[in-house]
Amino acid sequence: MRVLGVDPGLTRCGVGVVEGVAGRPLTMVGVGVVRTPVDAELGHRLVAIEQGIEQWLDEHRPEFVAVERVFSQHNVRTVMGTAQASAVAMLCAARRGIPVALHTPSEVKAAVTGSGRADKAQVGAMVTRLLRLDAPPKPADAADALALAICHIWRAPAQNRLQQAVALHTAKALKGRTA
Amino acid sequence: MRVLGVDPGLTRCGVGVVEGVAGRPLTMVGVGVVRTPVDAELGHRLVAIEQGIEQWLDEHRPEFVAVERVFSQHNVRTVMGTAQASAVAMLCAARRGIPVALHTPSEVKAAVTGSGRADKAQVGAMVTRLLRLDAPPKPADAADALALAICHIWRAPAQNRLQQAVALHTAKALKGRTA
Repeated sequence: MRVLGVDPGLTRCGVGVVEGVAGRPLTMVGVGVVRTPVDAELGHRLVAIEQGIEQWLDEHRPEFVAVERVFSQHNVRTVMGTAQASAVAMLCAARRGIPVALHTPSEVKAAVTGSGRADKAQVGAMVTRLLRLDAPPKPADAADALALAICHIWRAPAQNRLQQAVALHTAKALKGRTA
Repeated sequence: MRVLGVDPGLTRCGVGVVEGVAGRPLTMVGVGVVRTPVDAELGHRLVAIEQGIEQWLDEHRPEFVAVERVFSQHNVRTVMGTAQASAVAMLCAARRGIPVALHTPSEVKAAVTGSGRADKAQVGAMVTRLLRLDAPPKPADAADALALAICHIWRAPAQNRLQQAVALHTAKALKGRTA
């Protein structure tokens, strides 16, 4: 099972691909950051994020995309940009019939560290250990994207298979409607 | 000058096309609503909005797209969906090199009614009068989309021309980078 994790953001969008199944050692397939210039117009930043995500989907062909669920409790100024970047990531995946799962930051932290209130360093340390890396991936957004992918792989596999079937079916139906 | 106004929303996305120039009577070219089912998955709702906006762009070929600027002061539950729907609308326009302008709700109300605190009925009444319609467009999202387009046309025309040149240039540059 191959999962692309996306930690959405307008300036830095963390992306990480992890392969494996629950109960077995996991493998990191790729990790990186999609960046957009702070001074660019919002529309163009969204286009740049779309192009970046499309490249990751083309190159790594994930079966699932896991995106951090955005809450509006966070910093009011950044949360809108995060919501908009996450929309682009979800759109890119759903358009291809790849199921999209949303996980909250505390679900992800709990999955990889055992505590929903773990800090960035703890998440980075566990991602490094679980994927047998030499050092924690930098920046933190990249490590968070890998943590999202790991969290997703460790969910109930049966649920994932069902979601995959539904997503593919819906994508075909949507395509048919406008064809 | 032809403008597509978009009042973003996941359940109802108001869309309206207005043609004209500042100081002359304006013409409504089209008005409608892009709807997505409340019970569908978020990714598929975003795909449906993308398809709806693309159809409006294909059919009406606007020179500008005006989108309501989303604020997080609003209802916390709906604002994330509004931000995500607006991201899709901006993405569709920017991808084609169409300049995107954001206007706040109070800028739009002030433009069409003279007061930034006008209510829905007042905005609907003025849209009806300015576009010489028989009745206010329903639902309110559709009327708001037309008001956005009117607000945009009444901005300084020189500023619009400049923005159009910049958007086209940036879209070409973005395309070149990934080609």
